Amino acid sequence: MYETQNCSAARTLEIVGERWTLLIVRDALFRGVTRFADFQRSLGLARNVLAARLDRLVEVGLMERRPAPGVSYQEYVLTEKGRDLQPVLVALTHWGDRWAAPAGPPVVFKHVDCDGGVEQHLTCRHCNQRLVPGDVQAVPQPATGCTPQT
Amino acid sequence: MYETQNCSAARTLEIVGERWTLLIVRDALFRGVTRFADFQRSLGLARNVLAARLDRLVEVGLMERRPAPGVSYQEYVLTEKGRDLQPVLVALTHWGDRWAAPAGPPVVFKHVDCDGGVEQHLTCRHCNQRLVPGDVQAVPQPATGCTPQT
Repeated sequence: MYETQNCSAARTLEIVGERWTLLIVRDALFRGVTRFADFQRSLGLARNVLAARLDRLVEVGLMERRPAPGVSYQEYVLTEKGRDLQPVLVALTHWGDRWAAPAGPPVVFKHVDCDGGVEQHLTCRHCNQRLVPGDVQAVPQPATGCTPQT
Repeated sequence: MYETQNCSAARTLEIVGERWTLLIVRDALFRGVTRFADFQRSLGLARNVLAARLDRLVEVGLMERRPAPGVSYQEYVLTEKGRDLQPVLVALTHWGDRWAAPAGPPVVFKHVDCDGGVEQHLTCRHCNQRLVPGDVQAVPQPATGCTPQT
C-alpha cells in the first residue's frame, strides 16, 4: 500500500495499519486477552474478520499461536516485536485522552510499583534535555536512498 | 467504525486511522509540506483521494486551510491538535526502524540545538523512574463507563 514510501512510519502502518489490528494488540498488551472468544467479545468483530487479523498478526511475527496449557483451545500471545508496539499505543491513547475524551480518559496508565501516572516524552541522547515538538528535526539518511522533500 | 470501543486509542484511530492520513501529517510535521501539489508529489496519491483526506483533516481540526502569503494557492497547516500527533509518528517510526528497516533507518530524529539523537520513553510522574513495558498497567476509570476485560 505504501510501497513508494521509504519511511519507517509508513512501513509500520503497512504492518499494523489495517482496521482493528492495533486494537487487537491493545487488548493483548493491556487487557491480558489471549483467547479468540475474548478478543471477539472485546472487539465485537465478525469471526472471519477477527480470524484474518489474528492470522496476519501471526504471519508478520507480532503474535504466536500456541496451545493453551491444560485446555483444548489455542491462545494468541504477543512476541517481543508485538510488545514493542506499546509506545505506539500509549501515544495514540494520550492523544485521544487530550483531544477525543470529553468525559475524561476511559483508561489511565499507571506505574505498577507505585501507582504513579505514566508520561511519554522525548529526550535528547546527547544533552539529556527533554524535547518539545519544535526541538526535533527529521534528518534523511542518504545511505538508504531516502530523499524526502524538505 | 470503532464506536463500541470506549478507549482513547480507538478514538484516535477513528480520526487518524484512515489510509494515508498519518503520512500526510508526517509530511506536514517533518518535511514542512503545505501545498496540495507537494503532498501529491510526496505521497503519489490520486488527486481525489488526497483532496478527501485533506478535507477530512480540516474538518476534524487537525489542519487549517488558508491562503498562502503572496501566491494564488492555499496551504494546509497543522493546528496544535495536529502537531500533537508528533509522539504517535515518532513511536511508529522508531518501531519501523527497529523491526522493518533492514537497511537502517531512512530518517533519524535529531535535537535541533545539539544534533543529538532523540529517544522516546515512558517515565513515572510520581517516582520519576524510567519505565519498561512490564512496569505499566492500564487502569479503567469507572466514571467514564469503561469496562475492559482484564
